[in-house]
Amino acid sequence: MPEFKTVRGMRDFLPEEARLMRFVEDRARQAARLYGYREIITPVVEAYELLSAKAGEEVRSRMFVFKDLGGRDVALRPEFTASIARLLATVLRNEPKPLRLFSVGSIYRYDEPQKGRYREFWQSNYELMGSTRPEADAEVLLLTDSLMKSAGLQSVAFKIGHVGVLKGIFEQERIKDDIQSRVMQLMDKKQYSDALKVVAEAGISAKALQALRQLVELRGKDIKTVIEKMRDCVQDYGNAVLAVENLKEILDLVSRSGANLDVTVEAGFARGLEYYTGMISEVYVPDLNIALGGGGRYDRLIELFGGEPTPAVGIAHGIDRIMLGLQEQKTVLRTDMEKSAVIVPIASSLLGDSLRVAQQLRMAGVRVEVEVMRRKASKALEDADRKGIDFAVIVGEKELKEDAVAVRDLHKREQRTVKIGKLVETIRQG
Amino acid sequence: MPEFKTVRGMRDFLPEEARLMRFVEDRARQAARLYGYREIITPVVEAYELLSAKAGEEVRSRMFVFKDLGGRDVALRPEFTASIARLLATVLRNEPKPLRLFSVGSIYRYDEPQKGRYREFWQSNYELMGSTRPEADAEVLLLTDSLMKSAGLQSVAFKIGHVGVLKGIFEQERIKDDIQSRVMQLMDKKQYSDALKVVAEAGISAKALQALRQLVELRGKDIKTVIEKMRDCVQDYGNAVLAVENLKEILDLVSRSGANLDVTVEAGFARGLEYYTGMISEVYVPDLNIALGGGGRYDRLIELFGGEPTPAVGIAHGIDRIMLGLQEQKTVLRTDMEKSAVIVPIASSLLGDSLRVAQQLRMAGVRVEVEVMRRKASKALEDADRKGIDFAVIVGEKELKEDAVAVRDLHKREQRTVKIGKLVETIRQG
Repeated sequence: MPEFKTVRGMRDFLPEEARLMRFVEDRARQAARLYGYREIITPVVEAYELLSAKAGEEVRSRMFVFKDLGGRDVALRPEFTASIARLLATVLRNEPKPLRLFSVGSIYRYDEPQKGRYREFWQSNYELMGSTRPEADAEVLLLTDSLMKSAGLQSVAFKIGHVGVLKGIFEQERIKDDIQSRVMQLMDKKQYSDALKVVAEAGISAKALQALRQLVELRGKDIKTVIEKMRDCVQDYGNAVLAVENLKEILDLVSRSGANLDVTVEAGFARGLEYYTGMISEVYVPDLNIALGGGGRYDRLIELFGGEPTPAVGIAHGIDRIMLGLQEQKTVLRTDMEKSAVIVPIASSLLGDSLRVAQQLRMAGVRVEVEVMRRKASKALEDADRKGIDFAVIVGEKELKEDAVAVRDLHKREQRTVKIGKLVETIRQG
Repeated sequence: MPEFKTVRGMRDFLPEEARLMRFVEDRARQAARLYGYREIITPVVEAYELLSAKAGEEVRSRMFVFKDLGGRDVALRPEFTASIARLLATVLRNEPKPLRLFSVGSIYRYDEPQKGRYREFWQSNYELMGSTRPEADAEVLLLTDSLMKSAGLQSVAFKIGHVGVLKGIFEQERIKDDIQSRVMQLMDKKQYSDALKVVAEAGISAKALQALRQLVELRGKDIKTVIEKMRDCVQDYGNAVLAVENLKEILDLVSRSGANLDVTVEAGFARGLEYYTGMISEVYVPDLNIALGGGGRYDRLIELFGGEPTPAVGIAHGIDRIMLGLQEQKTVLRTDMEKSAVIVPIASSLLGDSLRVAQQLRMAGVRVEVEVMRRKASKALEDADRKGIDFAVIVGEKELKEDAVAVRDLHKREQRTVKIGKLVETIRQG
């Protein structure tokens, strides 16, 4: 028989990794709760028509597409946004605003597998819909910072920009949409000179080209200075000036929240997805050259899916990448403070009593394994030791006659007889 | 634009349902923890060859199968067992036994959609590997009972049987495997007379036919009596007698655990899947005509996937069906005891301070929404009221000068001024 393997690009999480994965998922859900985002769960399989409607060509070409048994064209979701837009255009159309929604789950892209990149991966996703205000943009940044820090990450850093700055110039210069989007993609890949070449060929003015040249060089942590220089660069482009003002307001609110975010403003920052209309951001940790999360404002997307015009700002975080960050930083999960025990009957006639004792302990929240191999007590204790279990509860006939069991502290290697009625207390305090 | 919809058979969970779904998932994970089952996470997309290897024709014909962009034949998993068997045959091959594994996630079957049945659904899945003993079988039953009760279900009832009883007769009567499996499938669907006809035509003896006729009628909650009658029926069939003994031992341990399971023994009970070799079970609640969970012993499956011979017993629970059970029984989730607040600045100049107050409350675990629409305070309070939020924290210039805010208890409709340093305390106690 050939050895069965995971499909290329897919992977298993063994217990240690699964525990870390669920820990990060739990932190993401906790952040949603603290900021008032309600969870929705949408299907992994969606109509191809929906998923491809507004996805860029790059995402579209890497989707898992197929026909279901009813001949429908379907695909595995490559992101959450299309599913959420579908909800906003249908069952949630009349929901009062602001509407805060959270989702977490697996998504699928046929990328070339490499470190930290699989074809099935997990994201947590937050969308705040209905507000055009800078406090909405500030909120998703604060939420992201809370999530990363509560997961235990050190030196979390934000890169923040605003697509309205570049778009304001391009539009005033009447650069066509398809060229704008090509330029944005080149800038996303930091291929600035190629990007500038494309707009130059598209007939952009010398003044605009000069502004763009300065913008792509402009970045820094001294927010006040960078914002002022951005404003100087774009002073002749009305909408670009408004974009700089908006960015300033957002960053001002973030700073005044007291949350102490580490922010670098990047004037030439662009993200691949075409639907952003305002502030965009990515979040990083040192020693890991990929973004742990990113997002931005997309005020026109919901109506493109048939919904009411709805301003929106959203952010998504790579659960896998946060895990990678935690592993790189050698973060130790707070050790399981809950006690664990193994129940070992001395004879098989005592199995029923052993199960009864086990149930009592579980009712009190103790993690309990019952010896199910009928090994000798010494062998079972050895195994419990290997697994790091705290206590062995040895059920013997003599003790049982007095409603008691032998309790062995596997760390201290001490053993004593304990009344069954005192067992929970003994183990909890031990 | 056409209205976008979910694909036929798929569904969304809106916030109320999503909350219930995550509650059940959490109870399932808690049961895993209490019984010492470690979680693993396997991919949704697996090789078709793996998933189809031991699946019955019925499951195989209802899989979502397709080719990925690399031309590989893949499918969406229709169950967890094949993935776990793959792990046992490869990376977990040499893991010490007993090995307890838990998984939870979505699975996919192209069934005809109906109430409580979708093409994407969720299962929690527990496997105890390495033990042939009745205490292992008893454990998965006890675990299932704990899970159902901790989720809040009332009147949880088990149907329990043993495939070794029927198989013991069939094998001694030299009934061929393919006929056995056809008969088991008919019995699973309670088409007993058709089943008996098939074995009669296959040349089974009159004595065996008589025993089978009695067995399919034999069921009841008086375990002692049913077990005795089963033993009488099969007395001339050695392996069937052993199966009855094994079933008796399992039920005896369950009863002696003190867990008070509601058990009906059903002598003619069969489950569709062909790989069961011992005890089988299903769990029900009243008024819901579908099993909330089921499983059994499958001692030969792991080696069929290329692993070491490994006795195993497992059980899976339908998260969706447990949700349906909770909804039918109108179970109310324990209300969120955590406090919630909305922060309303009186003027936009106070937004930074509002965000700062919000961050402080979140650090203390309070769920906080900040007003992001710049509505009048009265309008924002109305909205908070509608959402059932507990407190409004109104940030005004006058109070802020004295490091204070106005706190309005939205249930009692009382308002007072509170120092920011006392805010967490006020809201927690309120």
